[in-house]
Amino acid sequence: MEPKRREIEVMANLLSSNDIQAEVNREHFRKNNCLAINVIGSPGAGKTSLLEKTLPLLIVDMHVGVIEGDIFTSRDADRISAHEVPVIQINTGGGCHLDSKMVSNAMPAFNWQATDLMVIENVGNLVCPADFDLGEAFKVIVLSIVEGDDKPAKYPVIFRNAKAVVLNKMDLEAFTDVNMENMKQDILAINPDIQIFEVSCRNGNGLERWTSWLRQAVKDYQGNKM
Amino acid sequence: MEPKRREIEVMANLLSSNDIQAEVNREHFRKNNCLAINVIGSPGAGKTSLLEKTLPLLIVDMHVGVIEGDIFTSRDADRISAHEVPVIQINTGGGCHLDSKMVSNAMPAFNWQATDLMVIENVGNLVCPADFDLGEAFKVIVLSIVEGDDKPAKYPVIFRNAKAVVLNKMDLEAFTDVNMENMKQDILAINPDIQIFEVSCRNGNGLERWTSWLRQAVKDYQGNKM
Repeated sequence: MEPKRREIEVMANLLSSNDIQAEVNREHFRKNNCLAINVIGSPGAGKTSLLEKTLPLLIVDMHVGVIEGDIFTSRDADRISAHEVPVIQINTGGGCHLDSKMVSNAMPAFNWQATDLMVIENVGNLVCPADFDLGEAFKVIVLSIVEGDDKPAKYPVIFRNAKAVVLNKMDLEAFTDVNMENMKQDILAINPDIQIFEVSCRNGNGLERWTSWLRQAVKDYQGNKM
Repeated sequence: MEPKRREIEVMANLLSSNDIQAEVNREHFRKNNCLAINVIGSPGAGKTSLLEKTLPLLIVDMHVGVIEGDIFTSRDADRISAHEVPVIQINTGGGCHLDSKMVSNAMPAFNWQATDLMVIENVGNLVCPADFDLGEAFKVIVLSIVEGDDKPAKYPVIFRNAKAVVLNKMDLEAFTDVNMENMKQDILAINPDIQIFEVSCRNGNGLERWTSWLRQAVKDYQGNKM
């Protein structure tokens, strides 16, 4: 039985070491009055597209930084860097999620005296990132409605732990069989307090409401109301 | 340094234990003359929809079994069970991929004297399932084209290790910015031998070519040509 017990110990150490570093990160964000959000979604949900549309609306009155998590390429950071915000690419080298140590390693690249909002875009994955606290104030899910209305019920953990969900690609609703009422009901059954935004990054619908909410979240955080 | 070395040992044991069981599974499939395929894709790529459309075309002349992998619900198995094929649901209880032991545990539920093709639908995840051999003859990727043409380059491991990729939701091509030529070029740059199928589960286009190829793969396997 000895080897089995040893294995469990190691797993526990791995988990708590992530949680300890996440608290260090959280204290760093708090000390610098910077709201940090952890953006999670499947491959192709539109996380980077949402950022590309959101950044121009936010940077008129606040300083935003971006950490891009990907397995191999720097394609997402290349897209974001066109928007005149500081951006750092983290490549996990095969890993299926960011962890708090990777985020900590990226921190020296930013000017923390001038960062109101840090957006951390996680690896495209609706499962594993749910289990790894990065020290963020809250999680935001991006879900493409084309993925289908059964996704919240099938991947409940991430919906339970998020403060907002952006339902993207609404412009495709008419061409799919997705039932938006079922989808929203399932989301609220899992998490009654979650904010739901219906958005199309392609035609711009819904982006203003989402951006206003995020701007207010930064103000609430900086006013210590969150 | 002792704790670190111990951690690496445990990880190595976990991996090889999956590989050992995978070889046992593979021998089981071979002995029973049953082609086993491991179907992998993001949440909402259309893995279950593809099965729903493929099964009626296959069961006219062969016996098919299905193992459904999900995190929590049995929604996919419920959908498949309407198609009069034996189906078993595996719930990983939070786990982000199937492993070879889970597949082995599901085996007693099937009549192996009368199974030509075993379809194992993995958990919706384009990252983690790539690393876990289940004992299948080969992997099939299902990718929704709505996820975007950058996905093969961003998630290359799974494309490198698959025999076929089904590009689904082709009916939405005209309403997206996806560049199909770029996508296919990137796929072939990663894996020149992969078979590419362009399919719409919604309007049926491309299903016949895909199904013919899969039927031939079963015949090749049973004739020991694979």
